[in-house]
Amino acid sequence: MPGLDLARPAVVTGGAGAIGGFLVRALLARGASVRVIDNLSSGSVAHLPDVATEPRLTLHTLDIRQAEPLRRVFEGAGSLWHLAANPDIRRGTVEPTLDLEHGTVGTSNVLEAARLGDVPQVLFSSSSVVYGYPARFPTPEDYGPLLPQSLYGASKLASEGLISAYASCYGLRGVLFRFANIIGPTMTHGVIFDFFDKLRRDPTQLEVLGDGAQAKSYLRTEDCVDAMLLAAARAPGLVEAYNLGTADRTSVREIAEKVVAARGGHARIRYTGGRQGWAGDIPQQLLDIARISGLGWSPRWSSREAVDRTIGELAKAPG
Amino acid sequence: MPGLDLARPAVVTGGAGAIGGFLVRALLARGASVRVIDNLSSGSVAHLPDVATEPRLTLHTLDIRQAEPLRRVFEGAGSLWHLAANPDIRRGTVEPTLDLEHGTVGTSNVLEAARLGDVPQVLFSSSSVVYGYPARFPTPEDYGPLLPQSLYGASKLASEGLISAYASCYGLRGVLFRFANIIGPTMTHGVIFDFFDKLRRDPTQLEVLGDGAQAKSYLRTEDCVDAMLLAAARAPGLVEAYNLGTADRTSVREIAEKVVAARGGHARIRYTGGRQGWAGDIPQQLLDIARISGLGWSPRWSSREAVDRTIGELAKAPG
Repeated sequence: MPGLDLARPAVVTGGAGAIGGFLVRALLARGASVRVIDNLSSGSVAHLPDVATEPRLTLHTLDIRQAEPLRRVFEGAGSLWHLAANPDIRRGTVEPTLDLEHGTVGTSNVLEAARLGDVPQVLFSSSSVVYGYPARFPTPEDYGPLLPQSLYGASKLASEGLISAYASCYGLRGVLFRFANIIGPTMTHGVIFDFFDKLRRDPTQLEVLGDGAQAKSYLRTEDCVDAMLLAAARAPGLVEAYNLGTADRTSVREIAEKVVAARGGHARIRYTGGRQGWAGDIPQQLLDIARISGLGWSPRWSSREAVDRTIGELAKAPG
Repeated sequence: MPGLDLARPAVVTGGAGAIGGFLVRALLARGASVRVIDNLSSGSVAHLPDVATEPRLTLHTLDIRQAEPLRRVFEGAGSLWHLAANPDIRRGTVEPTLDLEHGTVGTSNVLEAARLGDVPQVLFSSSSVVYGYPARFPTPEDYGPLLPQSLYGASKLASEGLISAYASCYGLRGVLFRFANIIGPTMTHGVIFDFFDKLRRDPTQLEVLGDGAQAKSYLRTEDCVDAMLLAAARAPGLVEAYNLGTADRTSVREIAEKVVAARGGHARIRYTGGRQGWAGDIPQQLLDIARISGLGWSPRWSSREAVDRTIGELAKAPG
């Protein structure tokens, strides 16, 4: 089973996103040429190196819901890093076909483009939400049944299935990364970002959805990208699934208190109550990371360290 | 958790199909009104009772790929039995968006129609192919990871995920039935049908895809429908998955020899060789049926008996 081919260009969908930007820089640092596909709806060119001064980087402002225009981007590519998706899980509940179109249909479109372009390998940003409410913690990759609680989760599971079928039917090798909460300085969604955003609008109080006891594993973007590159090179099978997370988890209450402290400590924290933050939320999440550890990866930052570091960065950000 | 509501009409997608026709008759026999949605591409009105003489049955010739026209059919319905899909797994490999459109997008469309029509429960014909090549036999419902080997399998997994998300987000209760090979006199696909079809075209020889050692569990349509009705009434949770199969399995070689014998025994059987019959085929399949048995169901016919009975019926059929 050949490893990662960086001699040929890497295609990165969602490459201008919060994780994509880090991945693009890491691929460039390893000598690859990178073709970014992004519709710039939540991604931003600010997350990318300047294409004027980086000749190995091209940006294709395309929407993966449109199959045809994607195809020329895949000609001669050596790998597909498929990160593009609706990043707002809650929005998918009020717009029930959003994740189907941006997630599932989008994945089918990029896989077709990869197949027609003879791209040998796809690396996919799946999510821990495919496990739904797991009955086992830490949750291993062979956990079942997979009963996602959100339409975002349904689209991640659907995309995993499509990649598995493409591997079997057409020989496209696939690695499925089931992400914990990925956090870093460029993120535009998620609980830490939301808390800063709320406190900017009203510095006197912080409303927290749920009872604050929700506890999840937070992984830094840099650690996430390192793991993806490592597994892309070392995954032994035609299709492999790897959890990407940390060995610890952090509660929403702890995050709320730390964000308030970072902003000066004057806001009153108010909990809306209930085990779930919102319909489709997974209140408890801790992934078994033995499989990816077996390839030689371990996170540089624990969940608590990742949270502290990210809060520190966002507290210093302008606005 | 309320059980099955047959006081209000049942909507059956794919109701004119090989399994749908049996289900429609069973629902009518239990006193329900039935609204069939079928595009009649592989289904046939011959599988249904005559709508002229059965006032409780209506046939809506609609394609589930079109969301809007479906909606009026769901008004006031008490249950959705979602069976419509592309029935030809192999065709999905040469038309890579076929199962996405008829399966995944179609499922999203009927779920939206059910949500907008306040239908409380969905019963879904999933498939054992969601397990891919399982490493455990018999395979239980909590087996993982789910790595389907065909685009048909990917669409079944995607549909399961959608139903699970609709349950969590909107309270639509769901039962996922993972079918073994369902066989009966009205089927228009599958290995037994194919063998009769081939022998009609050339009575001197029978080409068998693969080495003949593929062995799967075959369940009669009547048993399948009984299990669906039972689980619809008794499934305890918001979303439940049940394998539907038999405790035994039958090899393709045995089926080939029995079909040849039923046709007079004069054809030479030729095996194309290889473990898989075709790209995306799952050569070994045996489902753990303890969960559905726990609800009080057991198949009337074993896999071998189901195969014998069906071969007997097809041998007597005209043509």
